[in-house]
Amino acid sequence: VRISELSRRSGVATATIKYYLREGLLPAGELTAATQAQYDDSHLKRLMLIRALLGPGRLSIATIKEVLEVVDHPPQSPLQLLGEASVALSGAGSSDDIAEAEIEHARAIVDQLGWTAAADPAVLGDLARALAAIDQAQLTLISGGVQRYGRILAELAEAEVATVPMDSPEAAVRQAVLGTILIEPLLLALRRLALQNASGRRFGGNGPTSGP
Amino acid sequence: VRISELSRRSGVATATIKYYLREGLLPAGELTAATQAQYDDSHLKRLMLIRALLGPGRLSIATIKEVLEVVDHPPQSPLQLLGEASVALSGAGSSDDIAEAEIEHARAIVDQLGWTAAADPAVLGDLARALAAIDQAQLTLISGGVQRYGRILAELAEAEVATVPMDSPEAAVRQAVLGTILIEPLLLALRRLALQNASGRRFGGNGPTSGP
Repeated sequence: VRISELSRRSGVATATIKYYLREGLLPAGELTAATQAQYDDSHLKRLMLIRALLGPGRLSIATIKEVLEVVDHPPQSPLQLLGEASVALSGAGSSDDIAEAEIEHARAIVDQLGWTAAADPAVLGDLARALAAIDQAQLTLISGGVQRYGRILAELAEAEVATVPMDSPEAAVRQAVLGTILIEPLLLALRRLALQNASGRRFGGNGPTSGP
Repeated sequence: VRISELSRRSGVATATIKYYLREGLLPAGELTAATQAQYDDSHLKRLMLIRALLGPGRLSIATIKEVLEVVDHPPQSPLQLLGEASVALSGAGSSDDIAEAEIEHARAIVDQLGWTAAADPAVLGDLARALAAIDQAQLTLISGGVQRYGRILAELAEAEVATVPMDSPEAAVRQAVLGTILIEPLLLALRRLALQNASGRRFGGNGPTSGP
């Protein structure tokens, strides 16, 4: 189909599609004349994927380019894949500003959880930063602490990894990378709503801040 | 203490402290001379809080200002508080770009979960956007789907709300607002590490992408 029809089907403006083409996010169509190209179903799917990543994932164009690069050129193994995706997504090298002691603290928590796979340094840095902020703010954690969050997320991760198809490398990479990214905003939105609901049930319209 | 001593104790550069003072994030010190001010423990605590919010929360200066505003002027009830904090944090008004059908879908999920408290429209919009992206990308969800994530987060929310102290309104607001923000990067970092570990255990060094 022509670019105008691709625009109609995807709901993405023609100018925006041209921008994605220029940025290399979307592969060029097949030239049928000097100024006309044809697009197929693969372009439509890729366009929906770009929109999905740009939306709640709130990734930058540069990051999306890196993620699509991983999707288009899958690495040898899913473990390697998750590593590459994590690095692409977490802004590698940003672990410079964390003290070694904080990294060690994060590593100790991962060890206590029995997570034996080699932890990605960039993500370990993210964990160290998160723990340091909680510490600085003197936030009271739930009973069970960080370990409780860890155990719950480990259980979810088992279920999430089980959704990765074993028969097609392309499908496996797609599911693993997109699952990593697209579930994050879902978790955060559900958590906010769950907190509002729990708060409403516990305190009602009033609560600790209302006087006698 | 003087600003130089505040800088030493907090580990925040004097120029940065002056910037926070200019932006109104940090209250002015007590003037002891025309060009000299004294700072106390409350300034040190506030400084640590700003650093915590600027860190993994990755909030902008403008958003931090709004969050501190809520912390300094607590609303009447914790429910109202969570609402105000959510609006400050979720960039209210951004729900314009979501179709009504998608909002309805999000509302139906919240209803199915039995969350009866009035859902914040901005957060409901975030949920709708997250669901639409998952849908567009044709991502396979874990068995149990969105409901399973919801039930787990509801259980965590109960425990999190239980950490909110009942005796002091200021402490209650602080814990509720900071808990909402600072646990998010913790969850995301733990999830990435849990996924790497689960992937490593399931696929080992190889997996679906390696040939026979």
